[in-house]
Amino acid sequence: MALPHARSGEVVDVQPLGARLASGKTAALFKSEDLELMRLVLPAGKALPPHRVPGEITIQCIEGALEVGVEDGSHVLRAGQLLYLRGGVTHGVRALQDCSALVTIALRKQPS
Amino acid sequence: MALPHARSGEVVDVQPLGARLASGKTAALFKSEDLELMRLVLPAGKALPPHRVPGEITIQCIEGALEVGVEDGSHVLRAGQLLYLRGGVTHGVRALQDCSALVTIALRKQPS
Repeated sequence: MALPHARSGEVVDVQPLGARLASGKTAALFKSEDLELMRLVLPAGKALPPHRVPGEITIQCIEGALEVGVEDGSHVLRAGQLLYLRGGVTHGVRALQDCSALVTIALRKQPS
Repeated sequence: MALPHARSGEVVDVQPLGARLASGKTAALFKSEDLELMRLVLPAGKALPPHRVPGEITIQCIEGALEVGVEDGSHVLRAGQLLYLRGGVTHGVRALQDCSALVTIALRKQPS
């Protein structure tokens, strides 16, 4: 999927979707040289199967509630809570309520 | 200033400070290998003079309103809006209202 390339000075809306949450879709926000941002939208009960990405990530719950499962346990995030995961950590995400979350990935450069 | 080193699986509170905003202080949240996160707290009318950091940054307004000035203009951010700036861009920040913001810096590696 082609991501919009970030323009410096770009303002992005990450407010709660509120009434639009039920019909919202996961969307890429932008990708720059070092960062990739997306808004994850997940209806209650739905899950992303365990997966991992090379770079460090933060998952910030914007609205609703979700559970992030990692090897050694799970973490519940409610609106305004942010979870940090180091690169390469296998994690699954399950929506406890209809939710949206801002996911920030630090793109890990391959050694050149 | 020594920053707390991020533990993977750490949950951080970035909810609005609300009634505690007036007495809140700017605080480092954590620093990891590739990311540094802080909550900026700025009372109405106060400003950070123009400065720059090597890495790309995002500034996400959590509450209140602030203005980010860059060379080619300025951007007003209200709660739930996020601004992306590429690394090395000189920027100043001015609080239009009492505000707090989540600042994420992608730490730029020096060529080894």
